[in-house]
Amino acid sequence: MDKILRIKMGSKPEFSVEKLGDYAGLGGRALTSKVIFSEVPPLCHAIGPENKLVIAPGMMSGSSAAISGRLSVGCKSPLTGGIKESNAGGQAAQVLARLGYAAIILEGDSPEGKLYTLVINKEGVKIVDAGKLVGLGNYATVEKLIAQYGEKVAYMSIGSAGERKLAASSIAVTDMELRPTRHCGRGGVGAVMAAKGFKAIVLDDAGCSVRKPVEPEAFKAANKEFIAGIKKHAVSGQGLPAFGTNVLANVINEAGGFPVNNFSKGQYPNVHKISGETQAELETSRGGKATHGCHRGCVIQCSGTYVDKEGNYVTKQPEYETVWAHGPNCGIDDLDAIALMDRMDDDFGLDTIEMGATIAVAMEAGLCEFGDVQGAIKLLQEVGDGTSLGRILGSGAAVAAKAFGIERAPVVKGQAMPAYDPRAIQGIGVTYATTPQGADHTAGYAIATNILKVGGFVDPLKPQGQIELSRNLQIATAAIDATGMCLFIAFPILDQPETFQAYIDLINGFFGLKMTADDVVALGKNILTWERDFNKGAGFTKEHDRLPMYFKREKLSPHDALFTVTDEELDEVFNW
Amino acid sequence: MDKILRIKMGSKPEFSVEKLGDYAGLGGRALTSKVIFSEVPPLCHAIGPENKLVIAPGMMSGSSAAISGRLSVGCKSPLTGGIKESNAGGQAAQVLARLGYAAIILEGDSPEGKLYTLVINKEGVKIVDAGKLVGLGNYATVEKLIAQYGEKVAYMSIGSAGERKLAASSIAVTDMELRPTRHCGRGGVGAVMAAKGFKAIVLDDAGCSVRKPVEPEAFKAANKEFIAGIKKHAVSGQGLPAFGTNVLANVINEAGGFPVNNFSKGQYPNVHKISGETQAELETSRGGKATHGCHRGCVIQCSGTYVDKEGNYVTKQPEYETVWAHGPNCGIDDLDAIALMDRMDDDFGLDTIEMGATIAVAMEAGLCEFGDVQGAIKLLQEVGDGTSLGRILGSGAAVAAKAFGIERAPVVKGQAMPAYDPRAIQGIGVTYATTPQGADHTAGYAIATNILKVGGFVDPLKPQGQIELSRNLQIATAAIDATGMCLFIAFPILDQPETFQAYIDLINGFFGLKMTADDVVALGKNILTWERDFNKGAGFTKEHDRLPMYFKREKLSPHDALFTVTDEELDEVFNW
Repeated sequence: MDKILRIKMGSKPEFSVEKLGDYAGLGGRALTSKVIFSEVPPLCHAIGPENKLVIAPGMMSGSSAAISGRLSVGCKSPLTGGIKESNAGGQAAQVLARLGYAAIILEGDSPEGKLYTLVINKEGVKIVDAGKLVGLGNYATVEKLIAQYGEKVAYMSIGSAGERKLAASSIAVTDMELRPTRHCGRGGVGAVMAAKGFKAIVLDDAGCSVRKPVEPEAFKAANKEFIAGIKKHAVSGQGLPAFGTNVLANVINEAGGFPVNNFSKGQYPNVHKISGETQAELETSRGGKATHGCHRGCVIQCSGTYVDKEGNYVTKQPEYETVWAHGPNCGIDDLDAIALMDRMDDDFGLDTIEMGATIAVAMEAGLCEFGDVQGAIKLLQEVGDGTSLGRILGSGAAVAAKAFGIERAPVVKGQAMPAYDPRAIQGIGVTYATTPQGADHTAGYAIATNILKVGGFVDPLKPQGQIELSRNLQIATAAIDATGMCLFIAFPILDQPETFQAYIDLINGFFGLKMTADDVVALGKNILTWERDFNKGAGFTKEHDRLPMYFKREKLSPHDALFTVTDEELDEVFNW
Repeated sequence: MDKILRIKMGSKPEFSVEKLGDYAGLGGRALTSKVIFSEVPPLCHAIGPENKLVIAPGMMSGSSAAISGRLSVGCKSPLTGGIKESNAGGQAAQVLARLGYAAIILEGDSPEGKLYTLVINKEGVKIVDAGKLVGLGNYATVEKLIAQYGEKVAYMSIGSAGERKLAASSIAVTDMELRPTRHCGRGGVGAVMAAKGFKAIVLDDAGCSVRKPVEPEAFKAANKEFIAGIKKHAVSGQGLPAFGTNVLANVINEAGGFPVNNFSKGQYPNVHKISGETQAELETSRGGKATHGCHRGCVIQCSGTYVDKEGNYVTKQPEYETVWAHGPNCGIDDLDAIALMDRMDDDFGLDTIEMGATIAVAMEAGLCEFGDVQGAIKLLQEVGDGTSLGRILGSGAAVAAKAFGIERAPVVKGQAMPAYDPRAIQGIGVTYATTPQGADHTAGYAIATNILKVGGFVDPLKPQGQIELSRNLQIATAAIDATGMCLFIAFPILDQPETFQAYIDLINGFFGLKMTADDVVALGKNILTWERDFNKGAGFTKEHDRLPMYFKREKLSPHDALFTVTDEELDEVFNW
């Protein structure tokens, strides 16, 4: 994994393979953010030729390190106008890493808007006309790709939303069953892939082998300890495998931070109808799976398979954020409808969080009532159909609110907030406000400490301690996102010193390094600094590190909570 | 004119009349920008309750000073997110000034989105239910208002676009014929008026008198000299009265700076079909008027009346920017179609510049062909009908380009560029980039010196001298916009020292002051500083003082010109 594949689009598509050079030692988010910071003019247009799309497996991807299969995609975001790193599970990271590529960099723009398929295998690289894939959804695209390239391959693709260059469009990554269910979802990365002229990427590692550690014994021992640590923690070892991420529905609802009807209430009376517990039971009773991994090497298995009443596959187990977005945030308590919308999002190539938030904005604007299941599905179908209404919705919550003339768009830097109300859980509000990524829970998951009491406890309703909490989590997360490790390792790492040590030993064993915890922190800080410097060049200031004003004006039930962290405090997050 | 009428909307609409206090001595843009800077939190939502709408006649409005009837409207702009001052002619400024109000400030938000009519006369102030006006276009609104309040009244109103809170919505002001043809057009001010709960404002100055000068003799003499100066200058005394603002079509086309087909070419072969000369001849031959004023006291008479083949009124004489926006920028050379679209814009309450630019973006995105007259009219009708497509278009060129997934949106700070390509006329590019208002030709009309050779000559194709030119014009313009004088006085003022002196003497004679040219400059600088400070608080930086990157990448025919003023030079505009 010591080379970069650079694809230069333009009147004649070209590519080159280069050494890592200045980027040596970086992977995942560290590599995508460093490349975007170094090579992309911050004031370029996100779908113009000066932007680049960087696809990078994590530092540990392709190895036998547990749960190391996250793939990072980076670019200037069409949604936020700032830097974007969006990562997904699925098989692509492992395969790309085994092919030896630390990154694919897509540059320039598609000649006359044509779409291509990028095919990468041990023999080399081909750029072929996307032909009949054009216009297809992700499921049909992958089906056709499988017919041509087989089943021992990982695929990445965009759906119709990406082709239309919509700001809520995602890039799909196939899972172990070759379904396009894992998405680099946030920030409109699908639009950038389309602008570069790519409908699909075929990653075939036939003839390649697992990446070997420099110190096999140390690596093996650390991996064993690391896995044991993950399995013994209540969240990663029990809650997530049993009920998936949607185990959070009851928990966040109980805390009064479960946003209902476009963030107008903090608790949902019908939560039991859509909770992780209910969902797991339903899946199991119908012959689906409640415990499953999104890629080989996963030891948490927080995913699953959602099937309909007849036992037919519908979609992967919808994540907590998806269930919330298409469910309670739209006043909807119908798991089958939520699963259908998850399937539609995956097929059209859309971010489920952004779409749920946007449909709720549309509901508030009066396009249909909160709770109108068929209305919500119809709105989502408009996006798939590419109607004018669909183009509004597919551009995300901020644009939709502007077009519909309403104030209440729950966005930061143009990106919709996920499934945690920042008034009831102030720590996540600090992350929403300040992360360079736009409102994003994964960037500094304060829920861990505010609600789950992982890594200590900071009272979610009070401003005290939230800045330090979010800061430390943002730094740690950036570093984890560089390794290709699933973010859920944070739970055992935060609570169990021996698991944190095993994590470091694992990296050291693989690369033959002597890294310490301080080095991990330094890496996280470097990544955040590159991202913030890019954003500064794109015109972002501390004034962009704010929640919309109505989160300070409109009280959230049941706690009558307002977001009370001051602007001055927010400005301290990156003063480390 | 020593009081402010403050309307506080909320669950129970209230109003108060206060002294000018800290705002004493200010008028027009000076007053609107000072109030917005002082009273509006820059990070508020433009259509949220924290924003305010300030309506202020110029310092000289209501007096017998020539051509002093401009009305300024200020707020945080829904289109740009920055401060906005949008001014219009028509009768409202004179009437409001004679009523004694230096400003109306609309605050808070409408209870349950209800719409009201604000009625102001010598007896006092009433806030009455807008009733059957709701949903009507500006023409029908004014017709109903006339039936109720008579013909000796000035009206302000919003159309359907404002009611929908669209970011391209305007506020209409009636002209001498009580037609809603003069618009505070730019920046979405109509949406803010709707958010405050007002459909219409009735201004009745029955029983009030012309504002009296402190030094009548000096004032009278200066006014005479001032008028003589305006009449003897070739632009304000001959070109504008004879052919209206559209006298520029041939001139700008000749210079290669006439943007065609969404700013993709700099010259239009069919310019003779839509030029000011052709337009004036057509109007006259049909029984319309080619020389007419937009308000009493105008001594330039650059407007006119556009009638159809049967001699029936269609609209006021479309301005140069309107003819260009709905004409050549969309590949259209049909004056009757352009006049119809001008009428539709006025009726729906839309900015003609933003709408023409947006329709051109839609054409580039493939919604119809450039040159498709019926297609363009149909797109505009969608905005009036409030369809989803209409909501995209009514949100302006930047949102439309985002929704349609194209890069080429000719905008700065989210506001569309007017009828002068910044690659062929670099001075106006400096103004577009740097004015706090978003792309706006009136903010520093470098065309004067780059093309018309008024106030000297600076080569339009070279970067040299453009910074100083734009700086000086922006300062002078801000000061003129404070007086309520029409900006076209700049032509004689810039070229004729005696007319500039008469202008200052006129102000001094009216107020009994001893202002010098330096004081005028100081006022202009103060206004720009308030505006820039507000924008800074709203998150604007030097990175927002840039043209879109494609103006540096894509050459404009016939000069193969790129915008070549450097970023570093742009940053010097406000270093005075």
